[in-house]
Amino acid sequence: MELFNNLKKIVLVVEYNGKRYCGFQWQKGQPTVQAELEKAIHKLTGERRRVVSACRTDTGVHALGQVVTFWTGSKLPCRKVVSGLNHYLPADISVRGAATVSKDFNVMKDAVRREYRYLILNSSTRSPLLDDFSYHVSTKLDLGLMSRAARMLKGEHDFASFVTAWDREKSTVRHIYETIFKKEGNLIAFHVVANSFLTHQIRNIVGTLVRVGTGKTGVDEFKRILERKKLSLAGPTAPAHGLCLMKVTYGDNSEFKYENLCA
Amino acid sequence: MELFNNLKKIVLVVEYNGKRYCGFQWQKGQPTVQAELEKAIHKLTGERRRVVSACRTDTGVHALGQVVTFWTGSKLPCRKVVSGLNHYLPADISVRGAATVSKDFNVMKDAVRREYRYLILNSSTRSPLLDDFSYHVSTKLDLGLMSRAARMLKGEHDFASFVTAWDREKSTVRHIYETIFKKEGNLIAFHVVANSFLTHQIRNIVGTLVRVGTGKTGVDEFKRILERKKLSLAGPTAPAHGLCLMKVTYGDNSEFKYENLCA
Repeated sequence: MELFNNLKKIVLVVEYNGKRYCGFQWQKGQPTVQAELEKAIHKLTGERRRVVSACRTDTGVHALGQVVTFWTGSKLPCRKVVSGLNHYLPADISVRGAATVSKDFNVMKDAVRREYRYLILNSSTRSPLLDDFSYHVSTKLDLGLMSRAARMLKGEHDFASFVTAWDREKSTVRHIYETIFKKEGNLIAFHVVANSFLTHQIRNIVGTLVRVGTGKTGVDEFKRILERKKLSLAGPTAPAHGLCLMKVTYGDNSEFKYENLCA
Repeated sequence: MELFNNLKKIVLVVEYNGKRYCGFQWQKGQPTVQAELEKAIHKLTGERRRVVSACRTDTGVHALGQVVTFWTGSKLPCRKVVSGLNHYLPADISVRGAATVSKDFNVMKDAVRREYRYLILNSSTRSPLLDDFSYHVSTKLDLGLMSRAARMLKGEHDFASFVTAWDREKSTVRHIYETIFKKEGNLIAFHVVANSFLTHQIRNIVGTLVRVGTGKTGVDEFKRILERKKLSLAGPTAPAHGLCLMKVTYGDNSEFKYENLCA
């Protein structure tokens, strides 16, 4: 039997194009990012290891800064782990950096903030260069109204209305720290930061904000949707391919620091 | 026989992801952007028309703002031309706008400036979200040296050294108006504007600038390469997928104005 003292825990920062994948998490017979990472680890180290992630991204969602951990008995230095995994991973997944942490580091529970970006292409015509990464909305959006509505989400709220399906026993309270809209030409980037997010929460927020932007839902109505805390009241759910996990932040006291990553 | 007075000339602004195409220009038995546009025009109008472009982009090169013209006897209003062509075009090509111009407008000869952008991803690891649109250089680049070298290209020069193959009868003199480097994180965007460009000129410029950035070619040597005017002295040719045609500018007196486009 393998002893944990012979193993070390490795953190990876991972980027992926979610287009081909049924989300991050392993699913029987489906292509997932987790399965690809575990395959690459097996090819590199000869070990069968389980990969744990900070966030469970849905089918089609992209990531620039997913964070994962796994145990290994391999003596490979950090740099070789990065280049070796990138050698074995498919072109749509890459490891951007790695670090060794102690066994106490918990990649999911120690994360204090998650930042996502949702891209909306607001133009009358589609864009071949952006279509894989943005939600194309051809009706002109009023960004002022959308920003006003988005600001109401800030703070600690029960986001039940923005959840599509949920275990009743679990809390739907989350804390949103930031909501920022940036516009460059036709492209609208919505950045949202929270302690953590509920399933489909951001996509339901964006779907509802787009209704606000087109004038179909008033800002007051948006407020009432939030306040009613009624399962799946918000929506529609905006498409997955506009969403990208940007960064997972760990506390100041966490042993994991981005500046210590090797690549 | 068809009379030209029954026909009108249409200008289109076209965006495409060049990945699947052997460049813009028609080639027998090869997928090209021109062939796709002509197919879509045929489906929409029932007419077989030749499409003429402002720039001939190479295999794999992208465009945000290619400009093309074609003749048509169709009475469809501008908006319907845009939506109709976008209906028939494949997902990696789209028409962003259209306008009617007089028969005297020459989409290639009336263009006074062409702007291209070349993206370089300067990071130790590859990027699944940017790999289709940027040249991955893992060696650390010195952007200061690259900018100094690029500035030497400004003005009217004989760019023979930056041409891979060329008809000796034709002039290799071009006027570069602007060279700008922008950096955001690991991504370096090189914007270059000229009256027009020679075949492979930008990719050979970028390939040589990357050598300058890694220290393999000195800034003085870069200057000598430019001054020697020797065919294909520069290079290597940077990959096509980092290049994107951004905008074609027409003179103040041109009847074609971007603000008159319908979409």
